[in-house]
Order: sequence, then C-alpha cells, then structure tokens
Amino acid sequence: MAERTFTIEGTLSALLEGKKYSTIKDILVTMNPSDVAAVFEDMEEDRLPLLFRLLPKEEAAETFVEMDPELQELLIRGFSDSELREVIDELYVDDAVDIVEEMPANVVRRILSQADPEMRKQINEILRYPENSAGSIMTTEYVSLRPAMTVGESITRIRRTGVDKETIYTCYVTKDRNLIGMVTVKDLLLAQDDDTLVSDIMDTNVISVNTNADQEEVAQMLSKYNFLALPVVDSDNRMVGIITFDDAMDVIEEETTEDIEIMAGITPSDKTYLRSTPIDLFAHRIPWLLLLMVSATFTGMIITSFESALSQLVVLTAFIPMLMDTGGNSGSQSSVTVIRAISLNELEFSDLAVVIWKEIRTAVLCGCALAAACFAKVMLVDRLLLGNTDVTVIVAGVVCATMALTILVAKVVGCTLPMLAKKLGFDPAVMASPFITTIVDALSLLIYFGIANAILF
Amino acid sequence: MAERTFTIEGTLSALLEGKKYSTIKDILVTMNPSDVAAVFEDMEEDRLPLLFRLLPKEEAAETFVEMDPELQELLIRGFSDSELREVIDELYVDDAVDIVEEMPANVVRRILSQADPEMRKQINEILRYPENSAGSIMTTEYVSLRPAMTVGESITRIRRTGVDKETIYTCYVTKDRNLIGMVTVKDLLLAQDDDTLVSDIMDTNVISVNTNADQEEVAQMLSKYNFLALPVVDSDNRMVGIITFDDAMDVIEEETTEDIEIMAGITPSDKTYLRSTPIDLFAHRIPWLLLLMVSATFTGMIITSFESALSQLVVLTAFIPMLMDTGGNSGSQSSVTVIRAISLNELEFSDLAVVIWKEIRTAVLCGCALAAACFAKVMLVDRLLLGNTDVTVIVAGVVCATMALTILVAKVVGCTLPMLAKKLGFDPAVMASPFITTIVDALSLLIYFGIANAILF
Repeated sequence: MAERTFTIEGTLSALLEGKKYSTIKDILVTMNPSDVAAVFEDMEEDRLPLLFRLLPKEEAAETFVEMDPELQELLIRGFSDSELREVIDELYVDDAVDIVEEMPANVVRRILSQADPEMRKQINEILRYPENSAGSIMTTEYVSLRPAMTVGESITRIRRTGVDKETIYTCYVTKDRNLIGMVTVKDLLLAQDDDTLVSDIMDTNVISVNTNADQEEVAQMLSKYNFLALPVVDSDNRMVGIITFDDAMDVIEEETTEDIEIMAGITPSDKTYLRSTPIDLFAHRIPWLLLLMVSATFTGMIITSFESALSQLVVLTAFIPMLMDTGGNSGSQSSVTVIRAISLNELEFSDLAVVIWKEIRTAVLCGCALAAACFAKVMLVDRLLLGNTDVTVIVAGVVCATMALTILVAKVVGCTLPMLAKKLGFDPAVMASPFITTIVDALSLLIYFGIANAILF
Repeated sequence: MAERTFTIEGTLSALLEGKKYSTIKDILVTMNPSDVAAVFEDMEEDRLPLLFRLLPKEEAAETFVEMDPELQELLIRGFSDSELREVIDELYVDDAVDIVEEMPANVVRRILSQADPEMRKQINEILRYPENSAGSIMTTEYVSLRPAMTVGESITRIRRTGVDKETIYTCYVTKDRNLIGMVTVKDLLLAQDDDTLVSDIMDTNVISVNTNADQEEVAQMLSKYNFLALPVVDSDNRMVGIITFDDAMDVIEEETTEDIEIMAGITPSDKTYLRSTPIDLFAHRIPWLLLLMVSATFTGMIITSFESALSQLVVLTAFIPMLMDTGGNSGSQSSVTVIRAISLNELEFSDLAVVIWKEIRTAVLCGCALAAACFAKVMLVDRLLLGNTDVTVIVAGVVCATMALTILVAKVVGCTLPMLAKKLGFDPAVMASPFITTIVDALSLLIYFGIANAILF
C-alpha cells in the first residue's frame, strides 16, 4: 500500500504560494477552530499573519483562543490596533484573561488598551483572584434573570443578550445581586405557559462555589453533578460569574497530568512535552533525582554495616535487586491506588484504619503467593538450572521470608503515607513510587540482613 | 473546638425511627441526586427501600442512576413490578443500559419485561455494540430536525418532545436518517426570524463518530472541541445516537484511573477502592508482582557472574541500590512523561526521533549534574563522614561514570518503549515504572560491573 504523503499543511502552503486566497478561505471555514489552530501551529511562522487574516471574524477569535501562547504573542505583535480590537471583541472574558496571563507586560498593555472599557474592567477583576481559584477561571458573561420575570420575558431577554454569553442554557436568578435560583432553557422552553413566573419554575436549591474555592474541587463538582455550569459567588453570596463544563474538563486534564508527573518524581510543568526544551525537562526532573540519590546514602550505609556478612556469603547480594524491586513495586501499587482514590474523593483520613486493614490482608495474600513462587523459582532456576550450589534451602528460606515481610511493610507504608500527607496538607501524589521505593529499599535491606543474621550466621 | 458529630445519615436514621416521613421527604428534595445516592450508600441496607420510596418520581430515577450496582440490585429485588416500571420509565436509555450491563441475568429479564417495547428495543440495540465502543455508551434520545423546518416549527418540536431527550441544546438535522447538519438551541433562539429555514442556519460541518469508535477517543474529541454532545453514526452515515459531555467526563476519569493503575503495575479494576475486597486487590496486583519477580532473575544472574569481583571489593555492593534506583527513577520520569503525552494525543510515532534526541540532551544534563553531585556526596559523606577508606577516588569515579551512563540509557529506553508499544498496538502505560525499572536495573548492573572490571581489576 502506498504511503499517503498528503498533509493539509502542504496543501495550504502550495495554495499560499499560488496566492489562491479564496480557496484557502473555503478550506478553513470547513474546519473546526481547534483543528485550524493545530494546523497553524505546524505552518511556517511568517505565513501565520496572512493565513489568520483569511479567517472569518468569529472563527478567527475561536482559533486564536486555541493556539499556543507563543503564536498568540507573535500574531498580536503583527496585528494593527483595529485587528487586535476585532479579535478581543469576539473573545469571552475568561479566554481573554487566559491570554493576558501568558503575555509579557507590554503586550498586556496593548490588549487592555484595545479592549472596550467594560471588558477591561472585567478582565482586571478576574486577574485579581489568586491563581488556581474558582474566581481566576470563571467568566462574568452569564444570563441573569429576575424572579418576577415571566417565561416569555425570559426568552426574549435571552434572545436579546444571549449572543455574548458563554452559555445561555443555564440562567441564574438573582435578587439584589444575590443568587436565589436557577432555571434552564429546557425548563423555559418546556414550560406550559409563557406567563408562568420564573420564581415558580426556578430551582432554589442552587449549588454554587466561592470565588476562592480551589479549581480542582470545582471541576470535580461539575463532573460529579453533571452540570453544564456552576455559579461562582463572593463571600456575601453575590453572584459574580460562572464556570462552564469545558473549563472543568481542561482543569481535570491539567490536574491529572500534574498528579501523574508528581507521582513519577517530576515537578509539574505547564508546557507540553514537544514545547519543552531539554533545559526545561532537566529543571523539572533534577530536584527529585538529586534528593533520591542523596537519600540512597541510607541503603548504602545498611549494606556497608553488613559488609562482613556479605563477604562470607556473596550469594546473598544476588537477591538484593529482586527483593528491593518487589518491595518497591508492592509499595507503589498501594500508594498509587490510594493516591488516585484520594484525588477522586473516594477516601478520607477517617478511612485510614479500614485502608490499613485492607492492605494488611492483601499483603498477606500477595506475600504468601509471592514467597511460594519465589521459593520454587530460587530452587529450580537459581540452584538447579544455573547450578549455583551456594543457594541452599536455608538461603532460599531467608530470601522468601524477607520477601513476604517486605511486602507487608511496603503495603502498609505505601497506603499510610499518602493519607498522612493529605491530612497534613501536602500533596499525596508526592508519596508515590520514587519516594516509597527509597523508604522501602532501606526497610527491605534491614529485614533481609536481620533475618540472614539470625538464621545464617 | 468541639468536634462536630452531626451526620445527615444519623439525622435520617433518627427521623426514620420516629416515622417522620414527610420531614425526610422535605430534606431529600433539597439535595442533589448524587448526594442522595452517596448518603443512601452509607445507610443500613434494610432501610433503603423505605427511604427510596420517599423520593419524588423523577429524583428517584436520577438517584437510582448514581448508586452502586450492588445497591441498585438490592432495590430492584425489593421493587414491585409497578415500582420498577416507574423507575425505568424515567431513565435515559444510556443509563438503563449501564444498569442492565451490571445486573445478573434474572434481574435483566425483569427490567426488560417492565420496560416499554420502544425502550426495550433501544436497550437491546445498544447492548449489541462492543464494550468500550461509542455505540455502547451513546443514548438514542436526541432531538432530530428536518432541513425544511422553520425555526418556529423547530422550537415547537423541541417543546413537544424535549422532555424525554438527554439534551435539547444541540439538535441534529437529518434527511433519510442521514446526518446532514446540526443546529443549537442558541442558534434557534437567536435567529432573527421564526420563518428562517433550519437548512439556512444549520452548520453542515458536523463532526461525528462511528458506532465502533473507541470510547476514549470519543471522550478526547468532546474535550478537545468543547462540544456538549457528539453525534454517533453507523457505517452508512445514518444517525443512531449521541454521546453527551457528562458521559465523556466519566469515560476520561475511568480511562485515566486505568492508565494510572497500569503504570503502577496493577491490572485495572472497575470497583472503587473501598468496595474492593482484599481478594480483588490481590487478584489485580499479583500478576505484575510475579512477572517482575521472575524477571529479576536476570539481575541476580548478572551479580552472580561478578561474584568474585564483588567479594574482592565488597564496597561496590553498597552503591548498587543507589545506582539502580537512580536509573529506575530517571527511566520512569521519561516513560511516564511520554505515556501521558501519548494519551493526550500530543505525541505520535513519527515524533520518535525528536523525542529520543530531546531525551538524550536532557539525560546529558541530568547525568552530568547528578554525577558531579554524586562524586561530592560519595567523597564527603561515604569517605570522610562515614570513614569508609575502601571508597577511593577511583571507586567514586566508577560509581559516577556508571550513574551518568545509566541515566542516558534509562532515559532513551524510557522514552522509546512506550512509543514502540503504541506503534505495535499495545497499551503504552504498560511501559511505565515497574517494567522500565526491571530493564534498567539489569542494564545499570551491566554498566557498573563493565566499568568496574575495566578500571579496578
């Protein structure tokens, strides 16, 4: 089968060469803005301004939002004031804030000077909220209704003001700026009578979040309740904005990546892998590597103190990697399971006893099964197949007893540390494989040499 | 500060004792169905049927959907036929399918016998799609419009049929059952004129997925494009259903948990941690532990073959854990980063050369920094502080050279294996810490003894 060499980027380049601008326009309008953004990012940078100008106004703004900050900055620097104003006019406030947060000061000044006064005020308001708070990711463009409005009046209001709102499907009922209820467009459309009052059909049981709530918590709530949007209120219960499901999905993706990175001993980064330079990667990876290397001093010390025993029976050394790895793997199975359950809000600190008891029983099962398999493997493979006569039944017994005990210790440590970390206000994800491995390594060596000393020497 | 001992479960129990049913009712209607489900799961099982009957019809069905399969089964077994029929009538088809999939055969027969014929037909249709496919998670209840309808007629149709639809906000335009466009309620409401034709305002550029598409891919698309819903078509482009954003969020959560479990050497499970018995946990953890234990035979063999060298210079043994752990940590940093980038569709196999080159440069930086730090640590801590005179400058040099080289090898192996796995159709997540650690352990020992042999003996 012939390899396809067609790429949309190649076609666009060729059309640009041939100045076939209207053909390019026709192609771009058939594409979704996030796809256009992805294609633009793969094009040569000096062609971008021209390509971008071929997009219809609304699609241009939507594409702009989806692009990388570097390219956004490049485009803004190339825009005339009126072009910049046109893009900003089409942006939702929360998207404008996201862009402003990534730009250098002089670009920010230009953006704010081209935004209309109302938008400038709203951008500045949102910028005042702390990073990762509900306030910092909300948008101020929502539909608000009054309790005394009728269904008919509400629909008219949505038709008149809805075009600039991020979602029209959930409308919030406020009185003196206080959030008192919500009503969906579905409720409005399905209402039997246009003269029904909003106060008669609204849901007064509104779940809202405070501006200072953590963005991860907010995202989890949206996901749990399957809401399209969640209202954000200030400390006086005055409605200030909404957070929509698509922002929640982005937050969840971002926070999960952060968890996974921390679990692998990487300090989290905002950049995608392909946009990270080796220096970036180095900077995010070296702290944990250094810390863990230094903490391995303890394992070295343990081995050194048993040096004379080891030189008498060097075969014991051969089992060190297997025992350490099995301990590390058992421990990280428990810690990672518990970390994930904590971040999905399935576990709380009060479950600690339940968790430890569950892990102890699991460890006994795993320990017995693995010790038995290990005994068989050591006797069959190491002694018979590889003919290592130093591997006696007693040595095999010491190795297997160590294994069973190490698994027990590893699982208890692995499940306890993340829950303690959470309780003490640290990120539980820190207590994953690399950290657990280092602790369990030292413990498994102590158990190993302890048992060996007691039985063999 | 006094500890609060109030729980909503306690209050409900007390009210049940006192037969204050209308008070309970008043409390329950103020709560969101997912909260009601969470509270019910913490109540004594024999009180559930009574509590459940106190919920209003619609809220009862929504609560039922949010409950664990075990409790759903318990409730169904207690329902009369007419109670069962009432709950099923209120369910969306996709939720009904989710429930049916978890129930034993005799319960399924009862559910199907109580569902109305149209719903039974739809449930059976969805059940025929393979697990984890778009078809298996879609719902067949969407709003379809004809291109020749006017905006006014469309709104009337939505008002008439919308109450049973999972979402009314995105409507799909079909002709001879073929999907030809889509129109949102926002478009309809904001249209200037009620006589505008749907065909004039519809978006003909509809992104759809095939019934056989993988659910993870579908969820990523919904997240990428920020859609409320995505239409599902069969192989003849006939529209058969929709997948909504809330299902996509559930799929993403589920698939991420699965990835994280696999990365920690656990075969994935559908049960939450607290609902898993030690036997369940054992069954999902032992396969990888066994496999990794057996594969540690190689590290044992490598050490055995260098036994004579080790017995001459036992101090070399003391650095084995540090070298193995640093190698394992470096390798998993790279593999986990690449695995996450693959699952977010940021990396493809064609990026392999770019990735390897980036990792090599990162490894050189990490390797040099870590080797330098290691040299200082070994000379200061192990030689001077701990007074181990066996630790000469040459030994320290061997250890540090091994460390730098191991990091290089670990990072290249760590980034390559997940990409190869993806290319060969395996799950890249398998190539995370436990697997990489085992490979890197063996390689780091070979490098260590190779360098030691060349320089020291």
